[in-house]
Order: sequence, then C-alpha cells, then structure tokens
Amino acid sequence: MTAIKDSVHGHVRLDPVAAELIDTPAFQRLRHIKQLSTVRLVYPSANHTRFEHSLGVYHLARKAVEGLRLESDTAAHVRAAALLHDVGHGPYGHQTEGIIRRRTGRDHDDIGWLLTDPDREVTQVLERNDLDPERVASLIAGKGGLGALVSGELDVDRMDYLLRDAHHTGVPYGTVDTGRLLTELRLTGDDELVLAEGNVATAESVLVARSLMNAVVYRHHVSRVAGAMLERACERYLERTRVGTDAFRRMADHDLLVELREHVPELGRRIERRDLYKRAAWVGLADVPAGTVDAGREEELAAEREIADRVGIEPEAVVVDVPARPGLKESGSSVVVDGTPRRLADVSELVAGLRAAERRRWRLGVYCPAARVDAVGTAAVDVLGLSTD
Amino acid sequence: MTAIKDSVHGHVRLDPVAAELIDTPAFQRLRHIKQLSTVRLVYPSANHTRFEHSLGVYHLARKAVEGLRLESDTAAHVRAAALLHDVGHGPYGHQTEGIIRRRTGRDHDDIGWLLTDPDREVTQVLERNDLDPERVASLIAGKGGLGALVSGELDVDRMDYLLRDAHHTGVPYGTVDTGRLLTELRLTGDDELVLAEGNVATAESVLVARSLMNAVVYRHHVSRVAGAMLERACERYLERTRVGTDAFRRMADHDLLVELREHVPELGRRIERRDLYKRAAWVGLADVPAGTVDAGREEELAAEREIADRVGIEPEAVVVDVPARPGLKESGSSVVVDGTPRRLADVSELVAGLRAAERRRWRLGVYCPAARVDAVGTAAVDVLGLSTD
Amino acid sequence: MTAIKDSVHGHVRLDPVAAELIDTPAFQRLRHIKQLSTVRLVYPSANHTRFEHSLGVYHLARKAVEGLRLESDTAAHVRAAALLHDVGHGPYGHQTEGIIRRRTGRDHDDIGWLLTDPDREVTQVLERNDLDPERVASLIAGKGGLGALVSGELDVDRMDYLLRDAHHTGVPYGTVDTGRLLTELRLTGDDELVLAEGNVATAESVLVARSLMNAVVYRHHVSRVAGAMLERACERYLERTRVGTDAFRRMADHDLLVELREHVPELGRRIERRDLYKRAAWVGLADVPAGTVDAGREEELAAEREIADRVGIEPEAVVVDVPARPGLKESGSSVVVDGTPRRLADVSELVAGLRAAERRRWRLGVYCPAARVDAVGTAAVDVLGLSTD
Amino acid sequence: MTAIKDSVHGHVRLDPVAAELIDTPAFQRLRHIKQLSTVRLVYPSANHTRFEHSLGVYHLARKAVEGLRLESDTAAHVRAAALLHDVGHGPYGHQTEGIIRRRTGRDHDDIGWLLTDPDREVTQVLERNDLDPERVASLIAGKGGLGALVSGELDVDRMDYLLRDAHHTGVPYGTVDTGRLLTELRLTGDDELVLAEGNVATAESVLVARSLMNAVVYRHHVSRVAGAMLERACERYLERTRVGTDAFRRMADHDLLVELREHVPELGRRIERRDLYKRAAWVGLADVPAGTVDAGREEELAAEREIADRVGIEPEAVVVDVPARPGLKESGSSVVVDGTPRRLADVSELVAGLRAAERRRWRLGVYCPAARVDAVGTAAVDVLGLSTD
Repeated sequence: MTAIKDSVHGHVRLDPVAAELIDTPAFQRLRHIKQLSTVRLVYPSANHTRFEHSLGVYHLARKAVEGLRLESDTAAHVRAAALLHDVGHGPYGHQTEGIIRRRTGRDHDDIGWLLTDPDREVTQVLERNDLDPERVASLIAGKGGLGALVSGELDVDRMDYLLRDAHHTGVPYGTVDTGRLLTELRLTGDDELVLAEGNVATAESVLVARSLMNAVVYRHHVSRVAGAMLERACERYLERTRVGTDAFRRMADHDLLVELREHVPELGRRIERRDLYKRAAWVGLADVPAGTVDAGREEELAAEREIADRVGIEPEAVVVDVPARPGLKESGSSVVVDGTPRRLADVSELVAGLRAAERRRWRLGVYCPAARVDAVGTAAVDVLGLSTD
Repeated sequence: MTAIKDSVHGHVRLDPVAAELIDTPAFQRLRHIKQLSTVRLVYPSANHTRFEHSLGVYHLARKAVEGLRLESDTAAHVRAAALLHDVGHGPYGHQTEGIIRRRTGRDHDDIGWLLTDPDREVTQVLERNDLDPERVASLIAGKGGLGALVSGELDVDRMDYLLRDAHHTGVPYGTVDTGRLLTELRLTGDDELVLAEGNVATAESVLVARSLMNAVVYRHHVSRVAGAMLERACERYLERTRVGTDAFRRMADHDLLVELREHVPELGRRIERRDLYKRAAWVGLADVPAGTVDAGREEELAAEREIADRVGIEPEAVVVDVPARPGLKESGSSVVVDGTPRRLADVSELVAGLRAAERRRWRLGVYCPAARVDAVGTAAVDVLGLSTD
Repeated sequence: MTAIKDSVHGHVRLDPVAAELIDTPAFQRLRHIKQLSTVRLVYPSANHTRFEHSLGVYHLARKAVEGLRLESDTAAHVRAAALLHDVGHGPYGHQTEGIIRRRTGRDHDDIGWLLTDPDREVTQVLERNDLDPERVASLIAGKGGLGALVSGELDVDRMDYLLRDAHHTGVPYGTVDTGRLLTELRLTGDDELVLAEGNVATAESVLVARSLMNAVVYRHHVSRVAGAMLERACERYLERTRVGTDAFRRMADHDLLVELREHVPELGRRIERRDLYKRAAWVGLADVPAGTVDAGREEELAAEREIADRVGIEPEAVVVDVPARPGLKESGSSVVVDGTPRRLADVSELVAGLRAAERRRWRLGVYCPAARVDAVGTAAVDVLGLSTD
Repeated sequence: MTAIKDSVHGHVRLDPVAAELIDTPAFQRLRHIKQLSTVRLVYPSANHTRFEHSLGVYHLARKAVEGLRLESDTAAHVRAAALLHDVGHGPYGHQTEGIIRRRTGRDHDDIGWLLTDPDREVTQVLERNDLDPERVASLIAGKGGLGALVSGELDVDRMDYLLRDAHHTGVPYGTVDTGRLLTELRLTGDDELVLAEGNVATAESVLVARSLMNAVVYRHHVSRVAGAMLERACERYLERTRVGTDAFRRMADHDLLVELREHVPELGRRIERRDLYKRAAWVGLADVPAGTVDAGREEELAAEREIADRVGIEPEAVVVDVPARPGLKESGSSVVVDGTPRRLADVSELVAGLRAAERRRWRLGVYCPAARVDAVGTAAVDVLGLSTD
C-alpha cells in the first residue's frame, strides 16, 4: 500500500487499483479542476481541487465499506467508483455542467463516455483488475444502496466536500462528524442505506451543515456573479470558436481561463482579474413570476439580449442568473427510528425549517458593469416581470 | 501585558486588572470546577475547567469591546465582568445550581455575595483599579446592551463554551465562527446588542450549534444519569452533615467528590467509579402529565421515595430527573434585517424547527441500579402518571 | 465494537476486551489522574487525564499492529498492554513516582502488583479473554520489539502524549505526524522495532518535538516549583500519617489534594491556590558540583534542612529540586539507512545538538516563600556548593 | 474595515490602504501564482496561492507592529510592504526566480520595476495614501530592523508560510507558535529585530520547523524533479519564442502551463500530466566535486547537452539539478540572552546540528525518462565527475 498525505484526512492509503487509476490522464486532469470554481474569489484559500477531493471520497468510502463488512469484490467496485466519481466533470466543475448537459444530455456523474473513450485508459485499468466498468458507472450514477453511498443523500462525496470546503474556506459550518457518520451507516436487507437508531441529530447535522454552507459559501453573491459571468463567457466561446463540446468538456481550468481571455476578452479578463459585474437586480422568490423561475436557458439568454437592447449595450454586458428552485437533497436521507428506517423529513421538524430557509435565501440575480446598474435594473424588472414592492 | 496560552484561543493577553483578578483565591478556585461536570463520563477528554473558560470569555470580550469601540472605562468594566462571570458557581457548576438556588434564592450569575465577602479580595482588586463592583455585578447579571454581551442571547460566554466544548469533547457541532460573530456585533442607539445586516445565517449557526450540542453532548443520557445522581447525593449530603449552603457553595469539585464518597457512599462511590444507575424510565414530553413536568423539587423527591417504597429499596436507589421545559434562549437574539433589528425567531423559519426538535428530544428520566430497572420502571409509570402507549 | 469519542483521535473503536478492561476500577481511576500533573498551573487548559491518554495509546497501538500485520493473539496482547500501560501510576503520575520507587522499588510501568491484587479484576478480565497477564506485563515493561512499541524509544505512548499535550496546552511543538510514524514502523527479523528507509527526518521530528516540549512545557519552571512542592508535601504526608505506600499509590489526584490540604496545610493550600514558592536558586549544570547533581533524595532532604536551619525557617519552607542528568531517550530509536537499521544518534547530527541543548537547559532549583528568597539563595549556594561566577 | 476569511488566520481585517492595494491587477495576479509550485505533485492539497499567503503576512505584520507600538506612519509602511512583498514573483514563484535573475539581475523581492511600471497602479495607491513607494520597496528588500520583520531571519513571511504550508500539505512540522513569536519580538535601540529574553527555544523551533519542512516538503525529490523540468522548459521556451523576460515575468501559472504545453510539449505535457522524469543520479555533497556544486547555469546546461549527446537523446531529455550549497538563513536570528542580543548560532548547539543535517540531505540530481535512467546515470557520473564509492 502506498499512501498520499491529505490536508483533511492525513494519510490516505491507496490499494493497488487506486494507485493505478490515479496515474491515468483522466484522473491527473482533476488536479487542474478546482473544487469550488469561483468561490475562491470570495474565500481566497479555497483553491482545493477535485483531485484531492476524490482521494478524500475514496478514503471515506474505504472506511465505510470496512464498517459495512462488504465482501471484497463489492468493496473494490465501491472504492473505484468513489475515486472516479468526479472524472466526468468539465472545466470549473458544476459551473459548466449546465452547458454540457444542454448540448449532450449528460451530467458529470454520467461517466459512460469515459468508458467508451478512444484511449480507454481508465477502462483498461478497471478490466485489468477484474472490475466491471459498467458496474462502477452504475454506482457513480447512484444506483442501489451502495450507489447511495457514492452519490446519494448520505454519500461520502458530501461528507468529504463539507469538511474540505470548511477546512479551505475557513468557514467552520461544514465540519461534520465523519467519524460518527461512518460508524453509524447501515445497509438494510432492502438494500437501503440508512443511519442506525439514535442518529436523527447526526442526520440533521449534515443537513444543517449543507444549509449554512449554501448560505455563506456556495451561494455567496460574489461567487454567483463570477460563476454566471463564466458560464456566459463559455457559451459565447463555444459560439465564437469551432471547439466542440467534447473538447470543451476535457479542458482543465487553466485551459479555459486562457481561452476565454483570448476569445471572449470582455468577460474573460474580468474573471481573471476579479473585476466583476455588480448586481442590477437581486430578487427573492416571492417577487419573481413562476414562468421566469422555471424558464429554460434559451429564454434567459433572450431576456439578456432584450435587457441589453433596451439599455443599448452589448449582450455580454448583461448576465441573468436564475438558480433552480430551492431544495435540500439531504432531507431524503433515512434514519432508523424505533426500529424502522424513516425519511429524515418525516421525523425531524428541522427539515421544514431548513427548506423554508432555502426558499427565503433564493435570489434571482441580474449583473452588469457598475456604471449600468440602474438602467439594467430597471429594464430587468420589466423584461423579467419582477415585482418591486 | 502578560499572556496565558489557551488551547482554544492561543495567546490570551491580560490587562493588569485581569492579571490581578486571576490571582485571587475566588478565581483560582475555578481551576477546580470542571466546565462540563459529568459530561466527562461520556466524553473522556472533556476535563476543561471554568478557569480556562473564563479566560476565553475575557479574551472574546476584549475583542468585542475593541470592535464596538467602547470608551475605556466602560470597556474595563465589561472585561472584568467577562472574566468574573463564573466565580459564583458552586462545585460541579450547573449541577449544584438548583440546590443552591432553592436554599439561597441566588443563581450562579448573582455574584453579590462575593462582593460582600468577608475577605473581599475580588472587591478590593476592583476598587483599587477604580472599577465599580456593583456595575460589574450588574453586567454579569445581564443588564443592558453590554450586559447582554456578557450574559445574553449572543454573549461571549456562549461563543467560548460552544467552541471549547467542541474542542475538548471532539464533537464538532459547536465550532461557531467567533471571528465573524465578533466582527458583526453592534450596539444600537437603544442600547440593544444586535448582529449587523446580512447575518441571519450567522445567528442561526449559533442556535443550531447549541441545539446539536444539547442533543449529543449536554443532555447525553449518561451524563444526565450521573448528574442526577450527583445532585441527589448533594442533597443527602447536606441533610446528613452540618455543612451549610455557603460552605457547600465554596467547595471545589475535588472536595465534593471526597465528601460524597465519605458521607453518601452509596452514590459517591458510584459516581467516582462511573458505576452508574440505568434508565428505568425515559419518557418524552407527550407521555408525561403537565403536573409532573412542572413539579417542584419537593414533589420529585416525594415521588422518588414513593417509588422506592413500592419496590422496597432505599430512597437513594431511585433518582427522578425532570428537566425544565424545552426552550432555546438563543432564539431571542436580534439581527438587523432591512435596516431594522428583528428577533431571530421572527425572521428565521429554523427557530420553530429547532424548538420543535428540543421538544422532541426532551425526556423525563428515572434511574436506579441495573437489577431494579424493571420494578422501578413499573412503579415510576404509576407514581408519575406516565403514559405507556 | 463500541466507540469512544476522543478530542485528539476522533472515534476510538474498542474491541470487546478493551471495553471490559475500561470498566474495571483500576482503569476508571485513571479518570482522576491528570496527564501533566502541575503543568496546568502554567497552561490552564492542560487538564487531560491518563484515562483519555490510555485510550489514545490503545488506538495508536491498534493501528500499529494492523500495519505490522501481527497475528491475532499477539495483536490482542499488544492492545491490552497499550491500554493498561499507565494503570500503575500513583496520584499525580510521574510526580509521585520517585517516592513510590524509593519505598517499593517499583516504577509505574511495573504493573506486577496489579496482577497480584486481592480483587484481581484486571487479571480476571485478561484471563477470561485468554490473555496472559504476565505477557501483558512484560510488554508494558518494554521487553522485546513489541514491548518497544508500548514502551520504548518510538512507542505509541510517546506519539499520543506529544500530540495530546500539544492539543491541550496550545503549544504546537508536540504535533508529530502519527500517520507517517505508524505507516513507517517495521519489526525486523531480529525482533527490533525500526522506522523504514527514508525516515531519518521522521525520527528526528519526534526527538525535536520532545526536546521543545521539554523546554517550554514539561520543565517549565512554574510547573517544576509546584511539582517539587507537591513531592515534598507527599513525603511529609507519609511521615505524618499512617497511610502506607500501597494506599498512597492507589489514591487519585483529588484524594491527594484534599489530604495534603488537611495534613500538610503549609504546602497543600499553596498548591491548591497556586500560591507558589519562588526561585531562590536556578543554576545550570556547569555551576553545580557533580556530587550534588548525583545526590540521592536523602542528601537533598538533608540539604533542605540545613538551608532552612541556617535561615531559621521551617524545613517545609525550602524545597531543593535536582533533576536527573539530562538525556534524550528517543535518540536510541532505530531507522533503516541504506538497508541497515541504525541508531538515530549514529546517523543524525541533530542528536548531538539536542543533547547539548538538554544539558544547557538543565537547572537545579531551590524554592521558598518570596520573602525569603535572598537568604535561602545565599544559604543554598553554600550548602550545595553552587558556583556563582 | 473590511475583513477577508482566511483558512489559516480566520478573519483578516484590512485597513483602507490594504483594501485598495488588493484590488490592483498586480496583486490580483497573485491569485494565480501557487505558493509551492510543484510541491502539489507530491502533496495534492498544496494548492494555496501567494494571494492568500500575502494576506496572511499582512495580518501577522499588523499584529507585530501593534505589539511593537510603532508610530502610525511607520506601521502603515510596514503593513503595505508585508502585503506587497511577493508581487515581484514570476510564474511558479521561486521556480522561475533563477531564470529571471540571470536575465535581469533582479530578485523577487526587488519590486523596483513595479514602482516604475507604465500603469503604476500600485504606486498610485501608495502615493494617494501618503505612503512612500521607495520606503515600501526598501522594507521589502529587508533593510533595517523593520525590513527584517518583512524579510529577514525572523520575518512574518516565514511565520506565515511555515504555518500555511503545514495546513495545506497536512505535514505538521511547520506549525510554529506565531502567537508567541509575535508577543516576543522586540526592536532594540540599535534598530535590530530580536526575540526577548527566554526565547532560545522559540527561535530554535522556527529553525527546526524550517529544516524538517525542507526535508519532507520543500525539497521532496518528486517536487524537485518536476521543478527542474519546469525550469528547463522555461529556458527552452524563452529560446524558442520571442517572449521577452518582462512579459515572462508577468505571466501567471496558468499562462505558463498552457504556453509550455504548446511550445515545449516534450516537457510541458509531462508536467501537466505528472508524467515525470526519474532520477538517473542522486548524489550527496561528499561525492560531487566542488566545481560541479558551484558551477553556473551555463555549465549545467553544457553538462546536460554532453550527457544527452553521449546517450544519443534530445537535450530536453536530460535535466541536471544542482541546488545551492546548504545553509539555514534562520540561524542568523537574534535572541536576548542575559540581557544581550545574541545570534542564535552562538547560543544554540542545535544550529550546528541542523546545518549538518542540511548538508547531509543535500543532493545533486540528474533526471531523464525512465527508459534511459541507466545510460544517463552512467554518463552523468562521468561528465559531472561524481564519485561512485
């Protein structure tokens, strides 16, 4: 066994398959994909990457499968899936996920294309070690009780990123108790992943950690402005160049930053120098028509163009940012109460409170250069049908 | 300035008054009062004392008054109050507070008797340094906006103990963001202590930290059993000996442990060796008659005797433990929202969820030696009118 | 497996034997023996106990034996030895070790008497679980390569206490890299415990951590003054009362503190209130005659009496404190270099530097009440033959 | 005052000048320069940047000048210097420093060119706030007692990077006690920066932290291989393109990575994918002729060419890496001993030990593709005159 030193978990010991997988170009590329994309423009220490996060998820998965006493072949598939769960990410991770999904129909946790890759290095390593690539892909897609361990409401992905993001941002809210979570996980006879009796507070703690990190870190408005500018720049980049979605998807953060600076300089330079747009509108759920909340990307882009037209500026100078409707995936986790697995939402009054807080914190944003904030704000109210009471 | 090294805050610099106060016997005694009394029987690392906690509260108060830019004389009173806020505690802190209150009418944050002490060392230090002991006592009692900083919903006491208890138990839920809290505190023109605009999540984070620490640490059933045994032993000790309440109040933990072992050996030895009673009843709020929930200590003791009688054992072999009705003091904290100070409970949907969780977690307990659990449980149901559905 | 939460290692999982051993009175007593005795008078957060330290040593031993892939019976003996390694300590740990050794010839790591105890609870648990008490005792005494893991130059005891003392004092120097140390330990064919190739710096880091913690924590002069007063008070206590060495050895810290306050009040009260003697002499190795450095305890006590006589004060008012000659046990650890186990002292130039630093920092101390410092200092120079150049 | 959250120091409060300086492009660029360049290929969490490090240095400098009670104008210059001390770094920091020095004669701490920049944004901010750019530059260059605080043996730069590198690599050796260091710094009447009486161990702890971090992190052989490949690639890049030194110096890490991949693909791709050369030679100081140790870069390049020629491979396939002669700058720090400032090397026997360890750890390296290791090793011995005993 070799070991890699991690800032969060200390020594991460690698089984031989993991050591081989790490050396593939597809995995090494994760060194160049930041975990929190534009959050670093608010929390400057948040430069950690999906490489080290993937090692951390692997480490927690290894401990979890030891605790669950899985048989060795199953455990090996779970470990490989945990390690590989993020290799499907495009540059800047979630920030380009929508773009790629709209063009390919595939999410980051669909690693099917990787397994059918021409160079097939990851596949070859798996097959050489008697692991079934399809089974690994299925775990990454979250199928079954063990899929839920890799990608579900109580997954090791979440445990690692909450802890790691807390460590690297300096915001303590994410410091979940992974020791306890790993000790208390159970796989029921119905192939359901649950927390053992006496762990309602444990499950609540994860939900709360996620909710507070959402409020203070993941959805910080400065990060959202930069992220929306980046997404907008990528769309324009794909229009202006002949770069295909597949080549785009394989880029690393540094490639994209250099490309955007060259091909979409009006946005690319600003992102690089943190010379960001300001908020022309920042509006809560109650003041946005349902049609606007649920609009597709095409409608958002049309709204951007119309707002820009009315103000008389370039379309790149207006960015409309409409997040998905608020939700809290973690509230679907299951905990044993009086001998029966129950959904957390059914046994904890906190879930309703946290969901309400998510709704309260939801904001539609419209961003533009500081000098145009008033005009763009006025146009946005009109074009998007925002209430101004 | 001298400095003391603290495991939580690093170097704590002491102003000259603080350095003098620390050398008084009343403050040195806090070295011998554990912060979490019987919690150490569950979390063995939780041996920290009110001495270091008081230094931590002083440290945070010093930073808070710097941030609030108080004038120097006011700041000096706040610092002294923060340092001295716990000198009124009896042995084992909150565990003996009820006993002392019932016999004297005084709580731990009433330090009036200390100021009228025959030896008056604390008073002398304060007066020698032109500080008004009555004003210090009033701050410790929580009066006014600055009193709220020492003892209120957003006080530095709470910030320190959540952090410190997390550090020493190893349970991460208490790791609040004191840096942010201290930066965001404001004193309004109406002498109200509030958090500045944009800090609903900050205030929620304190509430959540407290609620999770309640569930997992402060009200852990093993700690409650030991605490109830200790309280029961103290009552018996005061009956059996001629020790007066005042002498009792001035004891340190080690004095009490030795005294109980000698004078109430049936309970004292068990506490020392962690040979604890087991739960004969553990019943939620819905299953306890209101009269039982709100009963006074005399009624509880009468119930203990009656249960013991029915089972035919010594009265010390039954301990009835009825906590106060659930509440969450922190929900009264104020945050500025849209320019106006609002009570957290009025702007955060989480508060209701957390209160409901506190109610859900409330338990009445009846404890006795393991061999008698069944008989005592049956008698307790009857005597206390517990529902068994 | 049950688990206990520890502030340093997080979840410590207990095998069934460990869970039983922990419930014996001999082990529960360790809750009442502080790890760093009088150091808490300098570093007020240092209230951790030998109970939690023993759990930590057990935890590291469990990881070490997993790494060494020992067969199961051997591993079980090592784990039990690690857990029990400190049950032989008297009250205040090392501070009373000299007294007990002089009266019984036994050190704290000789747990023979425990195994022949009338109540024999520890022995019974071991035997009930097919563990050989003599073999456990032999490991605690440090015999063989695995004994060296429990009590040797690279033992898990040291790893835990350096880390734990750093965590609880707030002094970072002790934060050794246990992850690396455990990964790199090897047992050679000659039953020698060594660090694998490439770990000279790893071994040096332990040595350096120990040396810096010595300088700043373990041998801080205030802790030494209090410790010497305590030892002196214990000797007087044993003279003044009929308490036998065996009863003394079984006391806990709180028992001793209360006893000293009653029977040796002139020293006991001072220790409790941190009203300590001051240094009348504080003299380096070069200025102390070899005869004084190597004097036995009887000669030290005679010197105390003579100094007190000359000044005309009570013998308890003078405390002579002569530490053992400086050394660094860790320098005997072995590291593989170019394929051969080598003693660290033979491959690292740092060892000589650290030994020299230990010699430089060595001090003989003479302590007395502040008012008598000058007179006692003068007498001490004369009586002890100290050089005053 | 605004505040930025840092993973190491928590809330870093910014004075108004700092807030302005941070917004300049020259400072924002530091977001894109990693603190530890190629170390992240060994310690994957080590992705922290000179941006956050500079904030940390500023934070420590602010605390230091408060402790030293400097008058306000002086303090403002020191704070600005601390913040700006790294803006002169080229891409990949120290890794390109030699290249830039050989072409311009300027080191990274010579920020003169920045002050004479055409856009002059940093200079303008300083002048607008009545700060003298020349005085700031002089402090960054380490002149005077306060220059020593910014760039000297006991500077805040070192305190921050040791702590920060420990936090981000997960290697604990760098966790120095900044609280104590800052408390104990003094400025003598002779304008010398010293540690107060009683701090020999404090000064030693910094030296030891640096030495162990050197051994385990900064000079890890994998990082050295990657670093030497990078330097070699940059030299080739500057030969192959028309990019001038000044444009090169202003690049960020991501620019350089993309450029090298394009223009020096044989090395650039390997660095990006961590497909590194292996060690063909790794030779200690005793086995390298003095002429080789002290050779200039031209001679090293000539040796590379000759080795490549002999083996019959491209010159880029051989990298010769000869570090500077071993030293330990920190050993020149001053500590007050018996009332007089003394150089640490004169009062601590550890210094000699650490210097010897640095010499022992020094290695000349020759690197090449794995398949050519034997042939290149043989040729290197001959060409460089290495001893093979």
